[in-house]
Amino acid sequence: MALPPNVSSADFNRAIAAWKQAVGNDWVFTADEDVALYRDAYSPYWGEKEERVASAAVAPSTVEQVQAVVRTANQYKVPLYAISTGRNLAYGGSAPVYSGSVVLDLKRMNRVIEVNERNAYALVEPGVSYFDLYEHITKANADVWIDPPDPGWGSVIGNALDGGGGWTASPFRDHFGAHCGMEVVLANGEIVRTGMGALPNSKSWQHNRWGFGPWVDGLFRQGNYGVVTKMGFHLMPRPEAMQTLTVRVPRDEDVVPLVDALNLLENQHVVNGSTSLGGGGAPGGPAGAAGWSVSLPIYGPAKVVPAQIEYSREKFAKIPGATFTETELFRTPLDAATLARVRKVSFGIPDLSTFGLLGRNAANPSPPGGHMDFSPILARTGESVLEFIRMYREKLPELSEGGTLRILGPVFMTNWDRTMVALLMFPVGRDPQVNGRMRNAFRRWIELCAERGWGEYRTPSVFQDDVAKAYSYNNHSLTRLRETIKDAVDPNGILSPGRYGVWPKHLRKT
Amino acid sequence: MALPPNVSSADFNRAIAAWKQAVGNDWVFTADEDVALYRDAYSPYWGEKEERVASAAVAPSTVEQVQAVVRTANQYKVPLYAISTGRNLAYGGSAPVYSGSVVLDLKRMNRVIEVNERNAYALVEPGVSYFDLYEHITKANADVWIDPPDPGWGSVIGNALDGGGGWTASPFRDHFGAHCGMEVVLANGEIVRTGMGALPNSKSWQHNRWGFGPWVDGLFRQGNYGVVTKMGFHLMPRPEAMQTLTVRVPRDEDVVPLVDALNLLENQHVVNGSTSLGGGGAPGGPAGAAGWSVSLPIYGPAKVVPAQIEYSREKFAKIPGATFTETELFRTPLDAATLARVRKVSFGIPDLSTFGLLGRNAANPSPPGGHMDFSPILARTGESVLEFIRMYREKLPELSEGGTLRILGPVFMTNWDRTMVALLMFPVGRDPQVNGRMRNAFRRWIELCAERGWGEYRTPSVFQDDVAKAYSYNNHSLTRLRETIKDAVDPNGILSPGRYGVWPKHLRKT
Repeated sequence: MALPPNVSSADFNRAIAAWKQAVGNDWVFTADEDVALYRDAYSPYWGEKEERVASAAVAPSTVEQVQAVVRTANQYKVPLYAISTGRNLAYGGSAPVYSGSVVLDLKRMNRVIEVNERNAYALVEPGVSYFDLYEHITKANADVWIDPPDPGWGSVIGNALDGGGGWTASPFRDHFGAHCGMEVVLANGEIVRTGMGALPNSKSWQHNRWGFGPWVDGLFRQGNYGVVTKMGFHLMPRPEAMQTLTVRVPRDEDVVPLVDALNLLENQHVVNGSTSLGGGGAPGGPAGAAGWSVSLPIYGPAKVVPAQIEYSREKFAKIPGATFTETELFRTPLDAATLARVRKVSFGIPDLSTFGLLGRNAANPSPPGGHMDFSPILARTGESVLEFIRMYREKLPELSEGGTLRILGPVFMTNWDRTMVALLMFPVGRDPQVNGRMRNAFRRWIELCAERGWGEYRTPSVFQDDVAKAYSYNNHSLTRLRETIKDAVDPNGILSPGRYGVWPKHLRKT
Repeated sequence: MALPPNVSSADFNRAIAAWKQAVGNDWVFTADEDVALYRDAYSPYWGEKEERVASAAVAPSTVEQVQAVVRTANQYKVPLYAISTGRNLAYGGSAPVYSGSVVLDLKRMNRVIEVNERNAYALVEPGVSYFDLYEHITKANADVWIDPPDPGWGSVIGNALDGGGGWTASPFRDHFGAHCGMEVVLANGEIVRTGMGALPNSKSWQHNRWGFGPWVDGLFRQGNYGVVTKMGFHLMPRPEAMQTLTVRVPRDEDVVPLVDALNLLENQHVVNGSTSLGGGGAPGGPAGAAGWSVSLPIYGPAKVVPAQIEYSREKFAKIPGATFTETELFRTPLDAATLARVRKVSFGIPDLSTFGLLGRNAANPSPPGGHMDFSPILARTGESVLEFIRMYREKLPELSEGGTLRILGPVFMTNWDRTMVALLMFPVGRDPQVNGRMRNAFRRWIELCAERGWGEYRTPSVFQDDVAKAYSYNNHSLTRLRETIKDAVDPNGILSPGRYGVWPKHLRKT
């Protein structure tokens, strides 16, 4: 059995015994073959000594058990790493950031506590996946949509806490932004309810986010100040219809007015669906073709959507040479035949088809198995897109080692708040030599982007320190503020040390 | 000259001297007649010993000066109370929560640092009022709207930090929710930039709210963890048109389906304007008349709004007896004649006409001068409205002392997140005897509402402890978490002690 760092075998055995007492023998995992299940299948250090691995895992099924587990960890100073369902693939999976941590696996806490159709919200536990929530809503015949991310097997809470996004309408596709109210177990084992949840007998915990006084919810986004055990989410009442307008512009430099028109429409909330920029102007697009395209889904009443499409066309039509295509007006709920030919996540239905992306096919007979996602945030202007592409073209020969490292992208995704993410995907697998070259390239992209004012919104665990370091304004004052808070609310530094670059005092490098 | 509590005359003189050095002699106020200007004109303790008053005031004009002022305060342990423009009337004005604090007056920091039309945002300093920002935008010919609250003379930052709201479209009218990026001076004098602002050379500080890692912005909402010196806000690109649909339903109990339909439309973002429930069903409405009405402004393209109105009518038409009226379709920008007959704030134009509300008129020949606003958050259901009215009718005879205390309202405002605020206004003036009765009644409403699961979103300074205490889940665990953070980031407790119920260690009652 592996030991957590700086924990004696005797203390660890006492902690294990206490956890077994709290959650039952069956839910404390110490055997190598059990603990191995928590390895990050996409780890860029797979099989190397730097791979981040757990020493054990414990899976409570109630909030009271989470409290007991955390209190024991505090008593013996054992680092925990909380996961919801552990599906944060491409960004770290279920493996801890700090090797030797005990995974606090919340998958058994999988209750949908409430779905409220009239006020369009859900209150869930961390083990509830998008599939679970969808199934619950479907069985309850509630006329509301969820907003699934690409793969639907992950945790609704976990995805929100990692800053993930989905594919239906704004504002629901900003998963952290669409949450409303939390229950959190702090490092001292105390339960806190945020927002209106702090008011006993409150009937508006999932109605009003803010409550009274300082709003602490943000601390738990990409954070390690507590273990979130319940979280509310605003849901979208099923929109009657959806239609997608595709705009094509002929010249690469047309991306500037294209993005300007897109901004106007999205910032007015006329276009509410999410999209990516595509086309020959992007290095990842069809070779040779110039220009750009963008596909804009619009959700709303069947009589409103066509008017929104028409208004949108007028705005884009000011770009010389712009051409348009429209899908049919899809009316919801979709029938089975229609459902079979659309992208399910765009209609609020969780799915796993995204895993076909890097799968085995004729063009890719030997897929590497995993990938690391590189996700820098760009200001949403055409100029940013062109600048990114210039840098990418200039640096790619060096960073792909003359084309021998296959990096996918960039895909310019416009669905993050009012920014874009210029997504690159770095395939990784089981070959340490290739993985090492991919890691070097990844680190170099972080630096190159930081020099240009672009920082990542999320990154694989092994690069979280690198990215956090790039957010260095005033000698890392934001990081230092986070550390001050960390040391105050988790003085023994037992909760997810190192997550998103926030380390407790005893583990900080000077 | 008054002294702050627990500060020696010698130390206070040293602090005053240091501040004069930092900001100039003219901007440190110690004379009684100067300090009196910071009294809360609406104080319910006016002229009594419990009135919250400042000992002095200091008005820096740059971030560096704010740093110097805060460092000096830390050195001599002088409590500061930061205000932007000090217009938080009905909720405490410019007076400190902790009597004897020195007001840190940020009115001179009144630069509009950037207005970006293409990406529809502004970056401002705390002294910038809604009038200032409007004027700047108008002069720059930028085609974006601001979202003014009732009176436009207050600070854009101050209103957001106090959790205020405005009167145009969602999501812009949630002023804290619509912010994007902050610069904050901490108690130790360090500057922190949040979100993408932590990345040197970032071009997306006002584009993306979240950045990388734990999100600390929420701590500064209704908080006292730092002094906000810059803040970004998403703006709405000018909508082409606005039209208001008014729905009337005949029976008091129709408020249930009325609010259900409203929820559906607002949660689908078909109706995006803000509104209040009115009519004979509300005790404050026209005597005798039964039923309810609601007026729904819809902002958007001229060809889209009529379709949204039509869809909305269909939803409300399911309520038997529902009747409708519509305004004309207002096209923006409004001409002068139109502007003269509309409510300006609904068209993004700051205004002061709200002060007519409690002013001298035929019906109210002797206005008391000020008022305290009581703002409990209700779940947005018709049942909540009916329950509130039942309670109000049952308790009013006692709490109005048989009708001798004139309390205004309730007004059911639906523009707070997904909740309602059942606003009551308690007039106060210069008669300590009447003020005392009003205070007693106010405290009793806080208790009555808390018993029923309703808590305030904001309250006058003198009641902030009472309201914070009502948010008591798990032996006040949320308050204790906030206190732990307070003690860590402001160990001397110098920043706005007591604001929204958060006190530093040395001032906490056990």
